[in-house]
Amino acid sequence: MREPRLTVSLLVTNIGELVTWDAERPILHDAAFVVEGGRITWFGARTQAPSADAQRDVAGAAVIPGFVDSHSHLVFAGDRSAEFEARMTGEPYAAGGIRTTVAATRAATDEQLAANVARHVTEMHAQGTTTVEIKSGYGLTVHDEARSLAIAKQFTDETTFLGAHVVPDDTDIAAYVDLVTGPMLERCAPHARWIDVFCEDGAFGADETRAVLEAGIAAGLQPRIHASQLGPGPGVQLAVGLGAAAADHCTYLTDADVDALAGSTTVAGLLPGVEFSTRHPYPDARRLIDAGVTVALATDCNPGSSYTSSMAFCISVAVRDMGMSPREALWSATLGGATSLRRDDIGRLTVGARADFSVLNAPSYVHLAYRPGVPLVLSTWKDGRQLV
Amino acid sequence: MREPRLTVSLLVTNIGELVTWDAERPILHDAAFVVEGGRITWFGARTQAPSADAQRDVAGAAVIPGFVDSHSHLVFAGDRSAEFEARMTGEPYAAGGIRTTVAATRAATDEQLAANVARHVTEMHAQGTTTVEIKSGYGLTVHDEARSLAIAKQFTDETTFLGAHVVPDDTDIAAYVDLVTGPMLERCAPHARWIDVFCEDGAFGADETRAVLEAGIAAGLQPRIHASQLGPGPGVQLAVGLGAAAADHCTYLTDADVDALAGSTTVAGLLPGVEFSTRHPYPDARRLIDAGVTVALATDCNPGSSYTSSMAFCISVAVRDMGMSPREALWSATLGGATSLRRDDIGRLTVGARADFSVLNAPSYVHLAYRPGVPLVLSTWKDGRQLV
Repeated sequence: MREPRLTVSLLVTNIGELVTWDAERPILHDAAFVVEGGRITWFGARTQAPSADAQRDVAGAAVIPGFVDSHSHLVFAGDRSAEFEARMTGEPYAAGGIRTTVAATRAATDEQLAANVARHVTEMHAQGTTTVEIKSGYGLTVHDEARSLAIAKQFTDETTFLGAHVVPDDTDIAAYVDLVTGPMLERCAPHARWIDVFCEDGAFGADETRAVLEAGIAAGLQPRIHASQLGPGPGVQLAVGLGAAAADHCTYLTDADVDALAGSTTVAGLLPGVEFSTRHPYPDARRLIDAGVTVALATDCNPGSSYTSSMAFCISVAVRDMGMSPREALWSATLGGATSLRRDDIGRLTVGARADFSVLNAPSYVHLAYRPGVPLVLSTWKDGRQLV
Repeated sequence: MREPRLTVSLLVTNIGELVTWDAERPILHDAAFVVEGGRITWFGARTQAPSADAQRDVAGAAVIPGFVDSHSHLVFAGDRSAEFEARMTGEPYAAGGIRTTVAATRAATDEQLAANVARHVTEMHAQGTTTVEIKSGYGLTVHDEARSLAIAKQFTDETTFLGAHVVPDDTDIAAYVDLVTGPMLERCAPHARWIDVFCEDGAFGADETRAVLEAGIAAGLQPRIHASQLGPGPGVQLAVGLGAAAADHCTYLTDADVDALAGSTTVAGLLPGVEFSTRHPYPDARRLIDAGVTVALATDCNPGSSYTSSMAFCISVAVRDMGMSPREALWSATLGGATSLRRDDIGRLTVGARADFSVLNAPSYVHLAYRPGVPLVLSTWKDGRQLV
C-alpha cells in the first residue's frame, strides 16, 4: 500500500520581479520559486524551474517577502478618532491619551478583544503583512495584561509583555514597577516572548526601565524597548547595554545613541505612522543606515498615536521623509523586521525560509513608494497557503 | 395590463454616520436614505425612513459621497518608476520627464491605452472615487491628442483637452501654440468639455496660456489651468480673469493670487500627491480657506509626478501637512471637486443628487485621515448601482 502523500509542491512562476534578499541574488527578474512543506525549496530563473505538483502563474507581477510588522498594539477596544481630530486642529499629542484606551480595554470582554485583534490582523494580511508582533499594555492590571497576552497569542508567536506602558491612574510608580516585575510578570511571562517598556518622560525613567527589563530577562523573556519618541532619553543606550533586540521609535537620537546602536545587535525600529499622525518630525533613517545601524520599519498600529496597519504606507513615508531608498525601505519592512524579532525564517524568500509572500498588482516593489496609498497587494501567502 | 415597473427604490439604512453636505443637516448619525432612478429621493433619521422595494443594511458604517477626483492624466502608457527611484535618491523633479510618457503613449495602440485607463478607473472605484476628470496631454500631435480624448470619453464626461501640456521636442513654441489653437483644437473639441494649459516656466508662459484658453473658449470649451506648481507665475490671476473653473496646484501663491481666487468663482485645486512624490513643499490650504477660497483636493494621478489614485491618501496628507481639518478635507475631496467641475449633481447626498456614494469600513469619515494608507472602502456605488 502506498503512503498517502502529505506534501504537495507548488511552483510560483512568471514573476516579473522577485525579491528574495538572498546574498547573491537579492532581486531577480523573470523568476520562479518552489514551495514544499510551507518552505521555499528552490528559486531562480523561470526558464530553469523544476516541475511541481501545482503551479501558480502570477502574470509578470512582482513578488515580495511578506511584511514583518515588528511593533503593534492590537489588543485594545474603542477608538480615539475624536482625539485625533482635536490634535489635527491644534492640540498636541500626549502619552496620557493611552489611559482612554486602557479604560475601554478593561471594560471589553475577551471575545470583543479577540474579535478586534482578528479584524486588524485580517486587515494586515490583505495589505501583505504575514508576521505581526503584538504587545499588551492597555490592561495595566495583572488580570487585564495576562488576558491581553493570551488573546494576542491566538494570533502570533511574537507576543510582548508591555505592562510598563504607562503608570495607571492613582498608582505610585514604585508600587507599579513592583507589580509589573512581580505578580504581573509571573502571570504574563507564559504568554509572552518579549518584555518591553515605554521609556519616556511621563512614562518610565531609566531606573524603572532597567528594573522591568532585567526582571523580564530573569523570567526568560527577551528585551525590546520604546525609546526617544518624544524627546532624547536614556532608553536606547540602556537597551543596547542589555542586548535588546530592538529600540523602537528613535525619533530623537544623540550621536552617542547612534554610536551605541551601530556597535550593537540592537535594531532601530522606525515607526513613521506615529510621526505622520502626531505631526512630530520624522526619525532620520539615513543617519542610522549611514552609521551602520540595522533599521526596521513597523506600523506601531494602535488607536492613539498611529492607527495605520499599512506597511506600504510606512514605506512610502520612509522614502519621502526619512531618507530611505525604496529598496532600503522594503528591506527594513521585511528582513529588517525579521531581524528585529531575531527570526531567520521570515522576511526573505531564500531556500529554507517560510513561504510567506505577497503578489503585487505592480511590476516592481518600487511601486510601493511610487504609488502611495494605493492598495497594491493582490494576494498574501503564509507558510505556502493563500490567506487573502 | 399593468405597465412594467421601470424604477426600483432602494433604502440604504443603519448608517452610523452619513455625510450629505446638506445645508442644514450636513452630517447625520443613525441615518438612512432612499435611492430611486439613480438619485437620492429621501434622507434622514433611520427610524423615520420610508419603505422601499429593496433594502441594504450597512451595519453602522459611515457613508460618504463618492469622491470627485477633479484632476487626472490617465491616458498614458508605460511607467516612470525608475525616474521616481532616481528622484528619491537625489535627482530633482523636472517637467521634461513628461516627454518619456509622450513617447510611450504615442507608441501604444488605442486598445492598450483604453485598457490602461480602465485599469486605473477600476482602481479608483475600489477606493471610493465615482467621478474622475481625465486630461489628454501625452499625445501632443493632432492624432494622438484626439484619440486620447476619444478614449477618455469612454470613461467620463469630464474630459479635458491639454494639448498645451509641454512643447514637443524639436518644435517651436509659437508654431506649437498655432497647432494647439488651430487644427488640434478643431479635432479635439468634440471629445472634450474642458480646455487646460500647463502654465509654468519650462512649459507655457502667460501669452501662450491666454491664447490657448481663449481659443478653447471660442470653441465652446470651458477653461481650467495648471498654475504655480514649481514656482510663482501668472497662471492663477490669468485663470481668474478668464473665469476658469479651476486653478490647480497652487503650491506657490502670492498674496495677489490668493486675493484673486477669493474674489472669484475659480476653485483652487490642491494635489498633495505631487508634493508627496516630488518632495516639494505642500500648498497651504489653511491660507486659502481662511481667505475664503473654495478648495478642491484631487490626485493628479499620472505616472510622473503623482502616481497615486487614492483620494483617501490625499485627505490624510492634506490633514497632516496642509492645515485642513478632516471635515474640510473630505468636503474638498467630494463637493469641492464637484464645484471645480461646476457640477451640482455630485459630491453631495442631498435630495435630487446622484446616488454616488461609498460605504466605509469605519464608523466615521474621520478614519480616512486617522487611518492613513488603510483601504477603508467596503463598497462604491454610482447612480445607485454598486460598482465594487
